[in-house]
Amino acid sequence: MLKRTYEGQDCSIARALEVIGDRWTLLVIRDVGLGRRRFDELQSSLGVATNVLSDRLARLVDDGVLERVRYSEKPERFEYRLTEKGAELRTPLLALMQWGDRHLSPRPPRVARRRSDGANVTVALVGPDGAVVLPEDLEVVRT
Amino acid sequence: MLKRTYEGQDCSIARALEVIGDRWTLLVIRDVGLGRRRFDELQSSLGVATNVLSDRLARLVDDGVLERVRYSEKPERFEYRLTEKGAELRTPLLALMQWGDRHLSPRPPRVARRRSDGANVTVALVGPDGAVVLPEDLEVVRT
Repeated sequence: MLKRTYEGQDCSIARALEVIGDRWTLLVIRDVGLGRRRFDELQSSLGVATNVLSDRLARLVDDGVLERVRYSEKPERFEYRLTEKGAELRTPLLALMQWGDRHLSPRPPRVARRRSDGANVTVALVGPDGAVVLPEDLEVVRT
Repeated sequence: MLKRTYEGQDCSIARALEVIGDRWTLLVIRDVGLGRRRFDELQSSLGVATNVLSDRLARLVDDGVLERVRYSEKPERFEYRLTEKGAELRTPLLALMQWGDRHLSPRPPRVARRRSDGANVTVALVGPDGAVVLPEDLEVVRT
């Protein structure tokens, strides 16, 4: 197993990967975002070992990405919901989906749409004026 | 170790994670994108074991994300460059950076800017008309 922290990495990507840098973790977040909220639903969707799923869910709750909410008293039952912090992972996840659609999937299995009119939604780099920024006009610099 | 394929997962996110679903892999792609192209530069930047780095680089070359290019004949030396497919991971990586900046970093260590005027660049969900799509107006549906 890789260690969970990256010494000397002052980088928000590295920090983000400390929280979600494991494939099952991102797929759990995807599934909760798609409405699969109960342990058994997640387990059956992902086909992941129950101990791995328990571990990832507990870590995501600790990290403030998911919350565990009781939705039934008798019998007592819990489900997982994305926090606002977790819900904001929609952009990286959709960016990954878009890359996978373009390079790895013969036809996109799912599509991101605008609910109001069904128009396709893409993930784009934009400036403060809303203009799309082309790759050659992008730079990433230390602050 | 997790298995590398997800049976029954017809999902571009799952497929993307088969290629890049490991923390070191994404950090290698980040580093090559930042201009660290030689094995020793990558090794020293990441502090990762050389066997792990070799494995990840070989896999990324196999997957068409990186290419290994000879940049010196005598002595013979190689460097790694992003292919177009690999370069297109900039959007998911910047989306992760943006999420990490917002939720995990006291101050952003790096900033994405528009080269021409230094304006901040963000990763956004947009419709075909270029309008930003709000989370409540987004839906992800099976095709």
